[in-house]
This record gives sequence, structure tokens and C-alpha cells, in this order.
Amino acid sequence: MGKNLTSRSEDYSKWYNELVVKADLAENSAVRGCMVIKPYGYAIWEKMQAELDRMFKETGHQNAYFPLFVPKSLFEAEEKNAEGFAKECAVVTHYRLQNDPDNPGKLRVDPEAKLEEELVVRPTSEAIIWNTYKGWIQSYRDLPLLINQWANVVRWEMRTRLFLRTAEFLWQEGHTAHSTKKEAIAEAEQMNDIYADFAQNFMAIPVVKGLKTESERFAGADETYCIEALMQDGKALQAGTSHFLGQNFAKAFDVKFTSKEGKQEYVWATSWGVSTRLMGALIMTHSDDKGLVLPPNLAPNQVVIVPIFKTDEQFEEITTVVNELMKSLRLKGVTVKYDKRDTLRPGAKFAQHELQGVPLRIAIGARDLENGTVELARRDTLSKVTTAIDGIEDKVVALLEEIQSSLFEKALDYKNTHTTKVDTFEEFKEVLNTKGGFISAHWDGTIETEDKIKEITKATIRCIPLDSENEEGMCVFSGNKSSKRVLFAKAY
Amino acid sequence: MGKNLTSRSEDYSKWYNELVVKADLAENSAVRGCMVIKPYGYAIWEKMQAELDRMFKETGHQNAYFPLFVPKSLFEAEEKNAEGFAKECAVVTHYRLQNDPDNPGKLRVDPEAKLEEELVVRPTSEAIIWNTYKGWIQSYRDLPLLINQWANVVRWEMRTRLFLRTAEFLWQEGHTAHSTKKEAIAEAEQMNDIYADFAQNFMAIPVVKGLKTESERFAGADETYCIEALMQDGKALQAGTSHFLGQNFAKAFDVKFTSKEGKQEYVWATSWGVSTRLMGALIMTHSDDKGLVLPPNLAPNQVVIVPIFKTDEQFEEITTVVNELMKSLRLKGVTVKYDKRDTLRPGAKFAQHELQGVPLRIAIGARDLENGTVELARRDTLSKVTTAIDGIEDKVVALLEEIQSSLFEKALDYKNTHTTKVDTFEEFKEVLNTKGGFISAHWDGTIETEDKIKEITKATIRCIPLDSENEEGMCVFSGNKSSKRVLFAKAY
Repeated sequence: MGKNLTSRSEDYSKWYNELVVKADLAENSAVRGCMVIKPYGYAIWEKMQAELDRMFKETGHQNAYFPLFVPKSLFEAEEKNAEGFAKECAVVTHYRLQNDPDNPGKLRVDPEAKLEEELVVRPTSEAIIWNTYKGWIQSYRDLPLLINQWANVVRWEMRTRLFLRTAEFLWQEGHTAHSTKKEAIAEAEQMNDIYADFAQNFMAIPVVKGLKTESERFAGADETYCIEALMQDGKALQAGTSHFLGQNFAKAFDVKFTSKEGKQEYVWATSWGVSTRLMGALIMTHSDDKGLVLPPNLAPNQVVIVPIFKTDEQFEEITTVVNELMKSLRLKGVTVKYDKRDTLRPGAKFAQHELQGVPLRIAIGARDLENGTVELARRDTLSKVTTAIDGIEDKVVALLEEIQSSLFEKALDYKNTHTTKVDTFEEFKEVLNTKGGFISAHWDGTIETEDKIKEITKATIRCIPLDSENEEGMCVFSGNKSSKRVLFAKAY
Repeated sequence: MGKNLTSRSEDYSKWYNELVVKADLAENSAVRGCMVIKPYGYAIWEKMQAELDRMFKETGHQNAYFPLFVPKSLFEAEEKNAEGFAKECAVVTHYRLQNDPDNPGKLRVDPEAKLEEELVVRPTSEAIIWNTYKGWIQSYRDLPLLINQWANVVRWEMRTRLFLRTAEFLWQEGHTAHSTKKEAIAEAEQMNDIYADFAQNFMAIPVVKGLKTESERFAGADETYCIEALMQDGKALQAGTSHFLGQNFAKAFDVKFTSKEGKQEYVWATSWGVSTRLMGALIMTHSDDKGLVLPPNLAPNQVVIVPIFKTDEQFEEITTVVNELMKSLRLKGVTVKYDKRDTLRPGAKFAQHELQGVPLRIAIGARDLENGTVELARRDTLSKVTTAIDGIEDKVVALLEEIQSSLFEKALDYKNTHTTKVDTFEEFKEVLNTKGGFISAHWDGTIETEDKIKEITKATIRCIPLDSENEEGMCVFSGNKSSKRVLFAKAY
């Protein structure tokens, strides 16, 4: 605990890695590219899950669970999807180990236990789910089918980073089936809106809603909606995606329904997901050189109370007051923890709670008891005030709300001041290399231009913003005609 | 829906399989031995999860998440554990697929992408977790470490049955670390008690708490506590286990701590788990020939309301009354669904809700509106009464409580009347073949006797009940001395 974090300005990437580990969020495991999500990190993820789950259910979705494995023959059925994921698949080929005759005490794969057909560990579940939906959908009465799954998935990434890119990660994946194209598109848009709402109002992360270009689309989708956030180092992070899958999976798995008019038609599909990657977005949006900064909505403990005392008697007196205070705070819906550990001094506790991003800290000492006061410290601004203990519950509730909105405003301001309109490629490179952030520029709509810009600058088109207005212009790279600006950025 | 279930007396096993599928709980998938848990089944599992999670957290446990994969070298570190699971492991050997040059459009495993070390898909997580704990535990101050994980696991079972035995299943696994043997044993006992409490008071399933014999113990445990339930066909089902792991994993992974006295000592461990197998126990304890019977605690909908009408006007009048009724039921904490589908007749709706085990059904027709009454039907007893709509909320709440306790009493009565003391092996075989259930008999404590009894009768020792009294006797098989009765049964 004693050691400070590397500062963001010194080495942003190192700052991030250190913060994740030191704040007890996650760590690397013995399995290449796979992480262990530690209790404190997992508690934050549980808060995200609970809120998203509520939002999904309120919009008529139900949870279900589909197999971890996808038989190779199903995996390859939707060709684009298969092609997109084939290069990063963990593949199960055997179902038994045996004693290794050459190494006593060691095991080896039993060569006799080879599977007839290899099983892919799901990198995403469209294939196994659409193969299942085939049996569930016969008539328009069976539609829409609105299902979500909370699950682990595996993508064999070569360069991994805690939360941001790991070989195994946790996510939710919605998979819906509809009788019309219009309804499926509306669903994909609705879910992207839900993600934006969740990111902004729950996580205090401002996002841009947009469409991906063809080359950045999900493999197998006709259209990919996304929310893009901006991190403090000026790099963008894709925080959620919602795909309109057209009839691609219905055709690959032959899923038809009888319409009201009695005709056989292919079903229309969407899929949408967010993952533990959101933890990375959370950390990089709000945190500072002292450690994690948590919006109150996501804090496992919104308030921590630290007693400051010399004698056992003082400790007991303080504890009596704290117990009452905790009761009344809990009645107001505040989650509060009393840090009465006798193995750490108050200063060390303060440092730990700062590192772990507890939004509000209340310190109570013997003199406070006499004066009827407490010291109240905000994690986001690092400001402290001494305030009356009488009526503090309402102050705490109001402060938590203020912190939540102030974090959003601060991040929004950053995003706005780091979104730059440019009209020449010189300016584009200049802004990208000095200021970073989103670059709003005209693009001629071709994959060639997109690829060349990426090759030269490492910036990609993050999205075509949904709210971007029609505007006559010239492509920043080719000079060809363009009717809309798109957002470029370097990205995680 | 139209077709009836096979009756239990006709073919119990067929009844079970049909019920699981027809009540929309689960179905077999395209992956050998893996199931799809359908939304209705998953909603029941979510209720179990929520209650267990609450109980774990109340007793100081935190959730975390560890990798799906276990490198072979870690897997084999605890020899008994490895030996116990090696024969049923899914093994990942490659991390990439490529286009199959011989089959255009098909994929094959890329032979270049072979892993240096094979990865076992976790059948249980002691190995990967204890390897992680090594980095988390230095001092007695880091103990106890009380962690739970909600996860999927894979055991390559040859004979699978929905929920009861599947290659992949969902579960929770607690993994705790302690500074003393005594504390670890107390933890293992506490968690077994929590499972018993959950099974009896939440799921209405009576259980026997006991210890496993050495040969039935978890691979790697010094002692396995369990809860055993009795199904309606007289077979037992292990519903949860809690293991005292001694220092076996601490030694295998070299996990030591500095004690208060400054000595280096190995850590003491427990692990404990329940799984989607509980869904099987739930179904087989309470259900009948009409379908699923759900204790109100586990019912996604505790009450369903079916309107009975001929004209649109009648439907509107009924709906107005139902909307008010739903509001007031929800205020009392009752989950209620209004089944106003226009694609099914009331009779078909009744049959579906019976099949799916909705505890209470309220039917309201035009005549009921005139009389101020409704028809109230109990799923467990299949009894119906016409009752005043005034004050029905309290009746519903009381009835739900009555159903919950009555289901437990009924199952308890079954368990008690199907637990038989026998003193000769003839009697043992006679009871086993005619009546089934638990057989309480003296056993000489040897593995040889246990094995022979199993070989001859297929019955195993389910447990040595914790409340079994000391009683001098003779082993039912060998005639040797015995000081305690144990419980035998055929088991799932």
C-alpha cells in the first residue's frame, strides 16, 4: 500500500496496470491471458450486472443458458462469423487424461480419447444459439424471442491486458429473433440505447452512439451499433455493441417461421453484448494518480467510516456513535463500511480507501465527539470538510448524488474538449499526435481510405455518429466527396 | 401441450425426462451431454442463486472469478484430486482453426497452433484457486479467506441426464482458507448447514446431513459433509457437499502463512458446492403426473390470473379488475402474471400452468364479476374454491405460505416413511427391491464391505448421518461389530 502509483503523465499504461492490481480489482493468472477477478473488482462487476439485468428484464428479455462448447460443424455454418473468430479459438480435442507412463505422477492426454468432432470454446454464441432456436421457432406466435445469457467466453488474443483484452472474459450476450426486419433493427437500436443510458447514467461515462463501418462490423452482422467512450489518454474505447444480424444466421441454420399470412420466411436477428471490459472503461474514465475513483452507483462501499482514537474507551465511544450513524445511513439506502481494523493506522486506511475509490470517507475522532462533528472527505475532489454529525445522513445522500453527476460532467467536458473537427490530413495527424481524442472528419466511405488512414496514423473510424448531421464536405484523405463526418481515434 | 406426461408409476425416468422438456425447463443440445437451460428453468435457478448468494454474503463470503482453464501442470499437483477427475476432463490442445484445404468452406484445427501445455477445462477449481491463493496469503492477518465463485464446470460424463448429470453444469464453489484445523472444520460444517437450511426452508426438500465414507469422499478431501435427499422413486440424491480439505492443497501448492507466533504453517482449507443438479432434486421431490410442482419460494410466477370471457367488453371489464388485483398482490410481495394471450383457450392455459407448476391460479369470468368472486386453484393439491375477491390478497399470501410448508411436510413424511431400519442382509435386499428409500443399517466400517454391498445390490452408503446415535450392532453384511448405523440407498 505504501508505494505510490506511477502517475498517468509519466506512463499511462503502467499507471493502469498498477492501479488494477493495487486496488485489488484483478490480476494475471497462471493461464496465459486469463485474469483472476478479485473480490473487490467482482463486487463492482456485480453492480453492473444487477443494473443491466434489471434493464434487460424491464424491456421484456429473459435469461437462459446455452453450452460453453460449439461443435466445429456448427461453428463454421455462418461463414463470415466463423472466419472472424477462427483465428482465436480455444479448441477441445480430447476428453480424458491418463497417467503418463514416462513420467510417474504426471498426466498426459489420453490419445484414445480423441473427440470425433472438435469443440470450440464459445468466442460468442450465435452459432449454438441459432442452432437451438431452429427447434423453438415455428410460427409468428413464437416471435419475438428475447433472450439474454450471462456467460464466460474465450478469444485467444495474443496481446492481453487486464479487463481490456483477456483470453477469457465475462459478458452478457443478448440474442433475439423477430418476424420483421424493422422490428429487429428497432431492437438493435433499443439495446444500444440501453447501453448508452447505462454507461452515462449509471457509470457516469459519456458515450457517442454510432454505427460501425463495414470493416469494423461484427463478423456476421449487417449493421453494428456501438457506444464509444473516450479515455483520459485520448484513446477511444468501444464500450458496447448491438448488432442487426439480418437473416444471416437464420439462413445458415435454416430457421424459418410461418407468418400470419401462412408463408414460410426466414427469421430476423439481433445480438448485443457488454463485457468485463467495462471495468477498464470505468477505471480509465474516472481514476486519478491516487487510484480508483468510483461513481457512487458502482461503489461496493459508498461510504467508509474510520475511527481515530488512542484509548479503548475512545474507541468504544466512537463505535457507539458510528453504529447509530450506520443504521441511519443504511435506512437511506447508503452502503457503508466501518473500518475498525486494528492492524492499520488511520493514515494507511485513508490511503487504501483512496486507492480503492470509496466515494466518501468519514473520519471520527475523540475531539469530534466532543464537538459533535465529523470529517467528511470526497474521493473525487480530494476535498475535506468538518461538518456537524447532526443531519449528516442527508448531506451524505446529497453528496453522493453530486459526486455521481459531477464525475459525469467532468468526463463529458473532457470528451467535448477532446473532440476536434479537422478538414485537412495535416491537421488530422497534428491533432492525433498532440491532443488525441475523437477527430471528427469527412471520409469518402471507402474501405481503401479507411485502411490507409489506419496504416499511416493507427487511427480507426470509431463510428459514424447517429446524431451526425448531413454536411457537404471533402474526404480528409482522398479529397473525394463526403456527406457526413465520422469519428476517428486511436483505440483500445 | 395437449399430450399428457407419462405417469410416474408407468416409467419414472421417462416421466422425468418428459417433464423437464415439456415444462420448458431444459433440453439437450447439439453438444453431447450438454444442456440448454431454457428461460423458465433458468428463472428458477436464478431464484436459487439469489437466495444462496444472500446466505453466503451474510456469513462473510465474497464472490470472485477464476479462470475457466487449468494448466495441466497445476491440475496434476494435488494427486488425489487429479486422479479423481483425470478420466472426465475436456482438454484444450489448440488455439486456432484454419481453412481446411481439402474441404472448401470448412475449418480444421491449425496444426501449427498447438499449445505448449494443454489446458484442462475446470471440472472443479481447487487447483487454479490454490495456486492463486499462494500469492494472496502471507500472514495470519490474510486469513480467513472466504471466497465463492459462480461458474460453469465440465466433467465428461458418459451417461448424462438433464440437470442430474451433464457434461457442463452451472454451480457455485466456495473455497476458503483458514489458520487452524478447527476453524476450517467449523466452516465446512457451517456451509453444509447452510445447504441444509436452504434445501429445507427454501426448496421444501427435507435432507439428511451426514459425512461421506472414505470411498465416496471428494477427491482430495479429508472429510466430505453432504446433504442427501430422497426422490419419489425411492432413490437418493446428493444435493450438496462441503469438504474439509485439510492441508492437502496448501501442501500441493505450497501455501504457508506466518502465524501470530511467527511460525510458518500450512493453511487449512474447505471447498463446498451446489449445482444445477438441485433443479433435478426440486423436480423429483415435488412434482406429479400433471407436471412440475413448485414451492412458492422458487416459482418465477407465484400466481397466474386467467380471464374467462366471450366478448371484448367482458375482457375489458375483467382486465380492469385484474389490474387492480395485480397491483395489490405486488404490494404484498407476490409475483403475479396475467395470462391474457388471445392465442390459447382457458383450458389450454390451465394445462400449461399446471405443467409448469405455478402454485396458485386465479380464474375470473363474467359471472365472477357479478358475484364479486374468483376461482382459486392450488397446484399442489389440485383443489379449487370459489372465493370472494374482497380481501383475496391476504388469502393468497396465507395460501402461498401454506403450500410452501405443506410441500415440505409431504416430502418429509415420504422421507420418514421411506427410511427403514434393517438388521439382516435379506431384509436389506428385500426393502431395497420393494420399497426403496433410505436403509438404516449397521456397517463394519470397511471399504471391502461397502464395495461388496454395492456390487450385489447397487446401493451405496449415502452418508453417516451427523445425528446418528451410537448403538452397538452387527454389520448387516459381514456380521462384524459396528457402533453406528449408516444410510444406504440406490442413488442418482
